[in-house]
Amino acid sequence: MSANSFGQILKITTFGESHGPALGVVIDGCPSGVEFSHDLLTANLERRKPGQSSVTTARQEADQAEVLSGVFENKTLGTPICIIVKNQDADSKAYEAIKSQPRIGHADDTWKLKFGHVDHRGGGRSSGRETLCRVIAGSVAQMICEKLRPEIKVRGYAKQIANFILTPEESENVWHTNIDNFKTRFPSQRENEVVALLEKAKAEGESFGGVIEVKINNITAGLGQPVFHKFKADLGFAMMSLGAVSAFEIGEGFASSQKQGTEFHSHLSGAQYGGIRGGITTGETIDFRVGFKPTSSIKDLAKKGRHDPCIVPRAVPVVEAMTWILIADHLLWTRLDRI
Amino acid sequence: MSANSFGQILKITTFGESHGPALGVVIDGCPSGVEFSHDLLTANLERRKPGQSSVTTARQEADQAEVLSGVFENKTLGTPICIIVKNQDADSKAYEAIKSQPRIGHADDTWKLKFGHVDHRGGGRSSGRETLCRVIAGSVAQMICEKLRPEIKVRGYAKQIANFILTPEESENVWHTNIDNFKTRFPSQRENEVVALLEKAKAEGESFGGVIEVKINNITAGLGQPVFHKFKADLGFAMMSLGAVSAFEIGEGFASSQKQGTEFHSHLSGAQYGGIRGGITTGETIDFRVGFKPTSSIKDLAKKGRHDPCIVPRAVPVVEAMTWILIADHLLWTRLDRI
Amino acid sequence: MSANSFGQILKITTFGESHGPALGVVIDGCPSGVEFSHDLLTANLERRKPGQSSVTTARQEADQAEVLSGVFENKTLGTPICIIVKNQDADSKAYEAIKSQPRIGHADDTWKLKFGHVDHRGGGRSSGRETLCRVIAGSVAQMICEKLRPEIKVRGYAKQIANFILTPEESENVWHTNIDNFKTRFPSQRENEVVALLEKAKAEGESFGGVIEVKINNITAGLGQPVFHKFKADLGFAMMSLGAVSAFEIGEGFASSQKQGTEFHSHLSGAQYGGIRGGITTGETIDFRVGFKPTSSIKDLAKKGRHDPCIVPRAVPVVEAMTWILIADHLLWTRLDRI
Amino acid sequence: MSANSFGQILKITTFGESHGPALGVVIDGCPSGVEFSHDLLTANLERRKPGQSSVTTARQEADQAEVLSGVFENKTLGTPICIIVKNQDADSKAYEAIKSQPRIGHADDTWKLKFGHVDHRGGGRSSGRETLCRVIAGSVAQMICEKLRPEIKVRGYAKQIANFILTPEESENVWHTNIDNFKTRFPSQRENEVVALLEKAKAEGESFGGVIEVKINNITAGLGQPVFHKFKADLGFAMMSLGAVSAFEIGEGFASSQKQGTEFHSHLSGAQYGGIRGGITTGETIDFRVGFKPTSSIKDLAKKGRHDPCIVPRAVPVVEAMTWILIADHLLWTRLDRI
Repeated sequence: MSANSFGQILKITTFGESHGPALGVVIDGCPSGVEFSHDLLTANLERRKPGQSSVTTARQEADQAEVLSGVFENKTLGTPICIIVKNQDADSKAYEAIKSQPRIGHADDTWKLKFGHVDHRGGGRSSGRETLCRVIAGSVAQMICEKLRPEIKVRGYAKQIANFILTPEESENVWHTNIDNFKTRFPSQRENEVVALLEKAKAEGESFGGVIEVKINNITAGLGQPVFHKFKADLGFAMMSLGAVSAFEIGEGFASSQKQGTEFHSHLSGAQYGGIRGGITTGETIDFRVGFKPTSSIKDLAKKGRHDPCIVPRAVPVVEAMTWILIADHLLWTRLDRI
Repeated sequence: MSANSFGQILKITTFGESHGPALGVVIDGCPSGVEFSHDLLTANLERRKPGQSSVTTARQEADQAEVLSGVFENKTLGTPICIIVKNQDADSKAYEAIKSQPRIGHADDTWKLKFGHVDHRGGGRSSGRETLCRVIAGSVAQMICEKLRPEIKVRGYAKQIANFILTPEESENVWHTNIDNFKTRFPSQRENEVVALLEKAKAEGESFGGVIEVKINNITAGLGQPVFHKFKADLGFAMMSLGAVSAFEIGEGFASSQKQGTEFHSHLSGAQYGGIRGGITTGETIDFRVGFKPTSSIKDLAKKGRHDPCIVPRAVPVVEAMTWILIADHLLWTRLDRI
Repeated sequence: MSANSFGQILKITTFGESHGPALGVVIDGCPSGVEFSHDLLTANLERRKPGQSSVTTARQEADQAEVLSGVFENKTLGTPICIIVKNQDADSKAYEAIKSQPRIGHADDTWKLKFGHVDHRGGGRSSGRETLCRVIAGSVAQMICEKLRPEIKVRGYAKQIANFILTPEESENVWHTNIDNFKTRFPSQRENEVVALLEKAKAEGESFGGVIEVKINNITAGLGQPVFHKFKADLGFAMMSLGAVSAFEIGEGFASSQKQGTEFHSHLSGAQYGGIRGGITTGETIDFRVGFKPTSSIKDLAKKGRHDPCIVPRAVPVVEAMTWILIADHLLWTRLDRI
Repeated sequence: MSANSFGQILKITTFGESHGPALGVVIDGCPSGVEFSHDLLTANLERRKPGQSSVTTARQEADQAEVLSGVFENKTLGTPICIIVKNQDADSKAYEAIKSQPRIGHADDTWKLKFGHVDHRGGGRSSGRETLCRVIAGSVAQMICEKLRPEIKVRGYAKQIANFILTPEESENVWHTNIDNFKTRFPSQRENEVVALLEKAKAEGESFGGVIEVKINNITAGLGQPVFHKFKADLGFAMMSLGAVSAFEIGEGFASSQKQGTEFHSHLSGAQYGGIRGGITTGETIDFRVGFKPTSSIKDLAKKGRHDPCIVPRAVPVVEAMTWILIADHLLWTRLDRI
């Protein structure tokens, strides 16, 4: 089965446990001739890396990517690309207790119940560390898009952390801001307050949730399939497959459920559709939001310092990566639309 | 490609245009020996059928299902089950105008742009009529579940229509109510007001959105795959693949994004997780919500009477069908979990 | 699962039992804008039809194809194409005996053992009648190829029936011969002897095997994938999936196993490779052979006249159909080779 | 796409170029709880390894397998198993010439034509070195089978090398012989002659083809799917996907094409069917044969000593590996047959 695969044309298969020897991904279906940018890959991994700031987990990982196949003389070969990252700072001793006592909010018990035999160390494969592989695959997808459609832009940022919510002006401003200048990726003048909140939470074993918003500009029109693989459905699937995510909406989302048709459908096009009609991109800006629960590791577990008080800041590059994978997947898929 | 397939073990492939000769579905992966209930199938199709009440479209379709294969002596054979429904009341003349002028809020133009050649009549394959095939497949899935796990219950209902929202008590009461006794599937004493609103909307070419909530009781623990095919991810994909849907959330959903961890994660289990942890069902009640936009056909288009002023009432059996397909799919999948 | 699907980009899913209401196929992944030729489809079905001559089964079937979806104004829509054929001359009474006594050489007992519940009538889904669906899908594939690469030619014919074997001259002559002018599709002056042999066999409940050879001319170079989906592997899979087939070889096949390298690899290109090197088409003529066992229905079973004394004549259009499907599949697939 | 994947339930995805950093495989769909035998894996890799005897290539590779994921405390976790082998003796300089001049009988030119950009060193991904990954995956499959059905035995051996052919007695004797005691895996008293022939060929730049025969004993009945994934079809696909293979037959194979039905179908069961009827295993011994062309590297290319004068001896464990993968795949698949 393909329990660990994602995508139709550009198909990724991820593997690896949090405290095993390595994690990685095989990317099948990447065309030949794509220039491979190690810099882009490294930069994206840096953005997701643990230990990057005072508001993230203290786990130290170099997260150095090794390209094992599919790339030659800095170009893709059309063969499967395998890229791995070896684990280093895997402090498994801290997890001995889990063997007998499942952690609140985690998958320890459901996993055990399902598979019987589990790697209890650091959550094994249900650790957030698996998102590393998504960032790798997303980077390759981004390289494909940059070759095919360099005008496409993807921008993710924290729309909300705890009770801090971006103002409409701050939200609109994100294309003119370097999101990564903000530790929490909450692009607001109030960010110092958010930082303080998260630092305090980290010290005290508290945690918070939040919402990531993503905008896609200059997207090619005609992406998405009519029935099951609507572009919005693939986006929803991609986002809901992330560990801490509990909600997804596109365009006006839940708010549209309270609108009247004559008000909502005022123009043929419009931001209310989130850039998608009939499951197919219109070419207008796509925007969607992803809701994250508070981090599950709290109190004593969290105080050991190896957990994020809020996962949103580090999840931004992951959400962007999944978005790039889908864009590349559907861009390639359109080659099959017409005879 | 499998643009028109859904499911991993129980794989359905749908086909058919709104005004073509027929619509249908092939269900591959259904085990042999499942008792086939024509009554259940008919009942589910009746619940989705157009023209069923004063608050739905006036299109008249018998929606009579013909089983072409895979069933013999009222039992499944383990071979692919093909079931079709022929179109009858396909009034295509009303759609001549679309050829030159795309309808607001519809997929006419994105579709044309993608495929070049389109069946403009009644939205072709992007018509809501395609959900018929989902209800057929969902019925077969329900038969599988009734054999494997008769205790599982799925209950969908309108949580919100326009600005009417169920009270918490009404929501809790749904297991003791026959939802189908309510024309709008909004199980409330205020339903007469909702009916009046929708009848008026139908007459005036207005439309409304809404929210469907689904609860799953007595679900088997251990369903779902650790990474991409988390149970919540497959649910999100299923729901976002429906035409008018713009939002999905599970458990506390977006509301959880504003909670503190020490408050949210107060117990090992709990309703806040929506019955899923680490992507895997815990055995507790699953609950999720699906947000629908107002129907796209408004004003003159809608006044011709062949459109629903709010799609929520007829979408309830569709949402339930997709849920059954996923439950059956994952129930079968667990057979592969352990050696 | 996809037990009943074939192909990667052009994906077909077949359904139907020999004595059920209908058989059919859903073709997913056919691009929009392909001209649909009902004449080609009908002609191919005629070539496979039972009862077409004195050397085939007496079962009478109109085999009239109904296109249910995916085609509008004689062009494909890019949506799934479903085409069915209803069964008519299903004389099921003759099969009552099988319920208790499995037929020699058939799948009656293996099937029963696997699925428990079976449709014993006429072999159910393991009847050769399922190849009807392959001919339908192959016809659509042929339409795709005619649009993309009209120069490609596929020619199948009986290379051997019983102990009659084409001379090298007769084999070479096949492009200048109308194979269908030969009842047995054995294009030789000795065909009258083969006809006499098969007519006698039909009367006496005897049966024979044979070999079909296929040549592909003007094939596009570059078709096939490097490792698992080598063009020769997909061909081997396609042919070995036919009921009565027990052998497959390409180019010099088994004969090459006895050759010396310095003799065999005398030139960069050459007929010895069968038009494929490294799994990828070179553009040279492809040739392969498919070995068929004698028909399983013999003696009393066969004398009832509803079985073919040798399946090779009717299998020629089926083998060609599978070849077209693969060519179309790989032609479309090459669109994904390079960025 | 899944150009580099094989299998339906037990799905393997291979990667790696002959002279790249590493080759490997991801195995998805392996149930949890399978005891992982490093010894079995190592033993199988030793059997395939280059440089193992005087009749194989002189390339020296340790072929040491590193398990990166999916195994913990010597048991499988139910998560994807990634196993890699790093390349060491990659003497790429010898391949500089290929850049401008494609080698006879190789894929250098077809590959270039397809992908444009290629890794010319050692054949890149179309090198026989990719079969390493098949042996790894086959070993895991064998571990699964040993847990589920320890009675199943797979035995491969050279049936023919050049013009040396096993006698029927030698063929029947293979279950009582340690095939690996024969350098060429041709289990005959005449093996010394075969060795001499191949040593001479190696010195002189000559090469030979051959035939591998495989027998499967005590196979579970009921494996295989009715239409496309017949057990024989999957076997044919698996074998034809190997680089040097040009022919495949099962049971009596091509010889059956010359038989009369009343002679061939003399008994309900029987060796003539090769252990498969209707595509489904009967439980009787399965036997099939795989035809190999002479090695493509001849004359000067071969004299450099890094090529096998006949690939059959080293291909035996590869053919066995593919067989194990299919058995495990179909064994797991039968869990889905019945409700």
